Amino acid sequence: MQQHVFTIAKVCQEFGVEEAVICPGSRSAPLVYAFLKQPGIKCSSVVDERSAGFIALGKAQQHQKPVVLICTSGTALLNFFPAIAEAFYQKVPLLVLSADRPPELLNQQDGQMIMQKNVYGKHVNGSHELLCFEEGKVDFQLTERIVLTALYETILSSGAGPVHINVPLREPLYPEQIQSAIPRLHQFKDIGHTPLPLPTQVLDEVKQAWYSTYRKLIIVGQMPPDEGLSITLKRLQEQPDVAIIADVVSNQCHSATVPGFDALIQYADENRLKDLEPDFIFSLGGPLVSKALKNWLKQLKPLYHFRLGPEKTGINTYQNLTHFIRCKPKDFLNAVIAITRKPAAAPEFYASVWKAYHEKTTTAQRNWFGKTGWCEPLAVNLILAQLGKNHSLQLANSGTVRYVSWMCGMSEGIEVYSNRGTSGIDGTVSTAIGAASAKPEKTHVLIVGDLSLLYDRNAFWIKELPHNLRIVVLNNGGGKIFEWIEGPTKHADYLEWFTTPHHRNLKNLSDDFGFAHYICSNPNELQHRLGSFLDAEAGFGLLELQFNNQANIAAIREFKSLTIN
Amino acid sequence: MQQHVFTIAKVCQEFGVEEAVICPGSRSAPLVYAFLKQPGIKCSSVVDERSAGFIALGKAQQHQKPVVLICTSGTALLNFFPAIAEAFYQKVPLLVLSADRPPELLNQQDGQMIMQKNVYGKHVNGSHELLCFEEGKVDFQLTERIVLTALYETILSSGAGPVHINVPLREPLYPEQIQSAIPRLHQFKDIGHTPLPLPTQVLDEVKQAWYSTYRKLIIVGQMPPDEGLSITLKRLQEQPDVAIIADVVSNQCHSATVPGFDALIQYADENRLKDLEPDFIFSLGGPLVSKALKNWLKQLKPLYHFRLGPEKTGINTYQNLTHFIRCKPKDFLNAVIAITRKPAAAPEFYASVWKAYHEKTTTAQRNWFGKTGWCEPLAVNLILAQLGKNHSLQLANSGTVRYVSWMCGMSEGIEVYSNRGTSGIDGTVSTAIGAASAKPEKTHVLIVGDLSLLYDRNAFWIKELPHNLRIVVLNNGGGKIFEWIEGPTKHADYLEWFTTPHHRNLKNLSDDFGFAHYICSNPNELQHRLGSFLDAEAGFGLLELQFNNQANIAAIREFKSLTIN
Repeated sequence: MQQHVFTIAKVCQEFGVEEAVICPGSRSAPLVYAFLKQPGIKCSSVVDERSAGFIALGKAQQHQKPVVLICTSGTALLNFFPAIAEAFYQKVPLLVLSADRPPELLNQQDGQMIMQKNVYGKHVNGSHELLCFEEGKVDFQLTERIVLTALYETILSSGAGPVHINVPLREPLYPEQIQSAIPRLHQFKDIGHTPLPLPTQVLDEVKQAWYSTYRKLIIVGQMPPDEGLSITLKRLQEQPDVAIIADVVSNQCHSATVPGFDALIQYADENRLKDLEPDFIFSLGGPLVSKALKNWLKQLKPLYHFRLGPEKTGINTYQNLTHFIRCKPKDFLNAVIAITRKPAAAPEFYASVWKAYHEKTTTAQRNWFGKTGWCEPLAVNLILAQLGKNHSLQLANSGTVRYVSWMCGMSEGIEVYSNRGTSGIDGTVSTAIGAASAKPEKTHVLIVGDLSLLYDRNAFWIKELPHNLRIVVLNNGGGKIFEWIEGPTKHADYLEWFTTPHHRNLKNLSDDFGFAHYICSNPNELQHRLGSFLDAEAGFGLLELQFNNQANIAAIREFKSLTIN
Repeated sequence: MQQHVFTIAKVCQEFGVEEAVICPGSRSAPLVYAFLKQPGIKCSSVVDERSAGFIALGKAQQHQKPVVLICTSGTALLNFFPAIAEAFYQKVPLLVLSADRPPELLNQQDGQMIMQKNVYGKHVNGSHELLCFEEGKVDFQLTERIVLTALYETILSSGAGPVHINVPLREPLYPEQIQSAIPRLHQFKDIGHTPLPLPTQVLDEVKQAWYSTYRKLIIVGQMPPDEGLSITLKRLQEQPDVAIIADVVSNQCHSATVPGFDALIQYADENRLKDLEPDFIFSLGGPLVSKALKNWLKQLKPLYHFRLGPEKTGINTYQNLTHFIRCKPKDFLNAVIAITRKPAAAPEFYASVWKAYHEKTTTAQRNWFGKTGWCEPLAVNLILAQLGKNHSLQLANSGTVRYVSWMCGMSEGIEVYSNRGTSGIDGTVSTAIGAASAKPEKTHVLIVGDLSLLYDRNAFWIKELPHNLRIVVLNNGGGKIFEWIEGPTKHADYLEWFTTPHHRNLKNLSDDFGFAHYICSNPNELQHRLGSFLDAEAGFGLLELQFNNQANIAAIREFKSLTIN
């Protein structure tokens, strides 16, 4: 067995990697062996590579450090690809180590080989291949250099992301004896980022823009929790001409931001939307869930729109960007605070307009929840009311995350995650399992539709399900979002091709994997059940909420189009 | 809705496409609509894209014509990738139509978008993108040209394979009214292949080689059934210095070939292997399952080794190729028959040596089967004995296909398939479902391990399971091949990281999907059950064979290393 695999594991550990997710296989045996032998790295085994990829993503979301993913040769690493793409767009650091057979066998019909090198194309921060050393001819220093380069690429200052190293390995694959002749690593130090002080010219331009506008909107997209940024935003919000809207997965829903802006914009008529129009925008963070916001912003032409971000080129989602500033947004916003003060007089207090509409929206929703029958938004609202700072919320695509995005009532301090990088349904359960196992001190709650749950059912195929994960399934019988978005309903004959009725009984699933399963089909049952289900000591469980399809769809349509007075 | 989607469907149908596999989604709605409206193309809906890819592969295996695969934007098409890679290496024609959002939104955080263009890299015969037309500005002729080019690429003379067309679509995605203004297609005709007559120089060289050697071995790798080739091989075998060995998935196991050569080589001692050494080889077809043959051949230096195939460059699996002839093997072999005749005298009859050893091997196996206890090889042998020309066999990786490869007793005329292009376990059940639904006149029998079955369990998530499919599961509790190949067993402590124990009860699986499930745990039960289970009228069912792990592994080791006298 070639000994450089031990160097790979050691470099990862010294860099700060804490976890490796391992998929069983034969060619990968040396890598598996090295990581199992490496102190300081926790290994877990996942059979289905598609699920393993998302479990690693969930872990890396929580650690905010690279997690290693190991698989054998062949199509195994293709099954990682959905999670790789999500990690790329969600900027989550992952290091994929794919075992491979020696390169001289490639495309020679020699079994279980595909062209693994560069297989993830543009969806990785970096792609490398180790040399396929002959026994006794291992270049440890080269190995160290390549692995280290790859690890740094997972946390690029322009955006974290997945990196792939292909590792061709010769037989023997299993160690004859444990060897200790692995050379010591060369010293290396973390260079980190060297943020430049903001040039005076840039600051002057911002200052000029700041004082010539009175309706400043700060838009925060998807990002992991960041307390420093929260403090910065709270300071900015002290200025009455600044309104801050934070996406449901921005982890910035607190006193300084307007929660439920999604519904607010959706419910508002043209006059109200006019009142909300900004003349100045700072946008930062990843994608936004709110389609209403995106559509509204795309029609606006604010005087200034500064995009703040580490990426190489500006993201112009709303097609009205005026400036792109390559920076760490928090540092930049602090610099802005330092050079600006409250306006002496503003024609109207922009923040108050948002606040007033937000209150009206909240009231409209509160009234509606008081009288509506059993439906998915009501269920989600009841669940949110039970969550606090000890909870971490995972929201599935595509219905679930939208319901929460529309709601005005989320408590401060609940961490929220959702795979919005590519908005796929393929790894929701796995991501939640990864997250829960990586952060055992929180109780993680996944709210997921039946379709996403079943698609990713192999996520349950692990040795031990995390005791601190609770899964709430909104079971409406399959992909019913297509029955409440507009287009498909016009063609009832073809609806079965867009929706995905499945007639699956989740009881069989829970029997199969041996976990607790509860059913609720009205608000009283849910309220009765929730306390004990969410209890930190209750252990892993699945709560299935069953809905009457017609009533549910009618209620969702109603909730989407409330009017505010 | 842009109207060129109707052109896409129409071109496919005129080209000969008979089936489309559709995965539900929103962006893909226009494509789905067009294919549903297209007479002559049968559509089926599959929720999990990973499974859908392999179902399409199974269908295309049977049709030997391209099958269309449709998915929505985002990670959906990444889930096709394992099946795409298998199709590429197994040379199966597939046409992937991936819906996409308009290109100006890409990498602008606009949701459910990845860089779809060229995403399959080198694992496709071709990769295209349609223009994203504005409503009313559709170029029908361009669309027709691109789709037609792609379809021809799925059946390249150098090897069939998958082709990808990315189809960006603008809203509205659902038709306002059925329109009929689709222009007629331009006439086109199938150019087909134009085989050249073999140059005299090549034939002279072959003739010279033929008459100067006496131990000619023809090796046939994986390929679909080909009666013409069978006739050719039977004629060649009339020459007593010609032995033909056909791989288990070559669909050329008949009177002219030596079945069970895999075990024969494995059991033979050095002297016997010496007797079998060829001085002349013709090799053709795809990969071989037999590792014993590959290892043996790699050590040999025959005087001549002609590789016959349509591929662009010669495949030199055994590293002793002397000639590569780009041709249709059947045509070439017929030309060889035309210019050669039986040798006047040969030092010994090479074919007879193989035949004699084959008889000894058969006897040794027959004796062993007569006395062995319950184990996987015995079970497989009992099943094979029940199969005939009305059966089509699908063999899973990696244990199952090896057992059958070792056996000497398969009846002539049973079609055999296995995903040996990349030897993955990821889509075994899906492929069998695809094959069974594409060829309803046969009863398809899948023999699969518990691990492959569970990995691909979402294959069962379709509207109707094919009545003509029977699944036999060799349930040994998970990935037990690692307990009978050599390396891993040396490291018992780490075995759990290589094997995949799962403690799953297949009863729950069958309850979940509502199909018949039977269990046998000894030879008598199996023999009693098999007749009714395989009966053509019995309908879809799953037969679980349960084994005692220790006894099973001991028996497999014994069967792998029988001695012949």
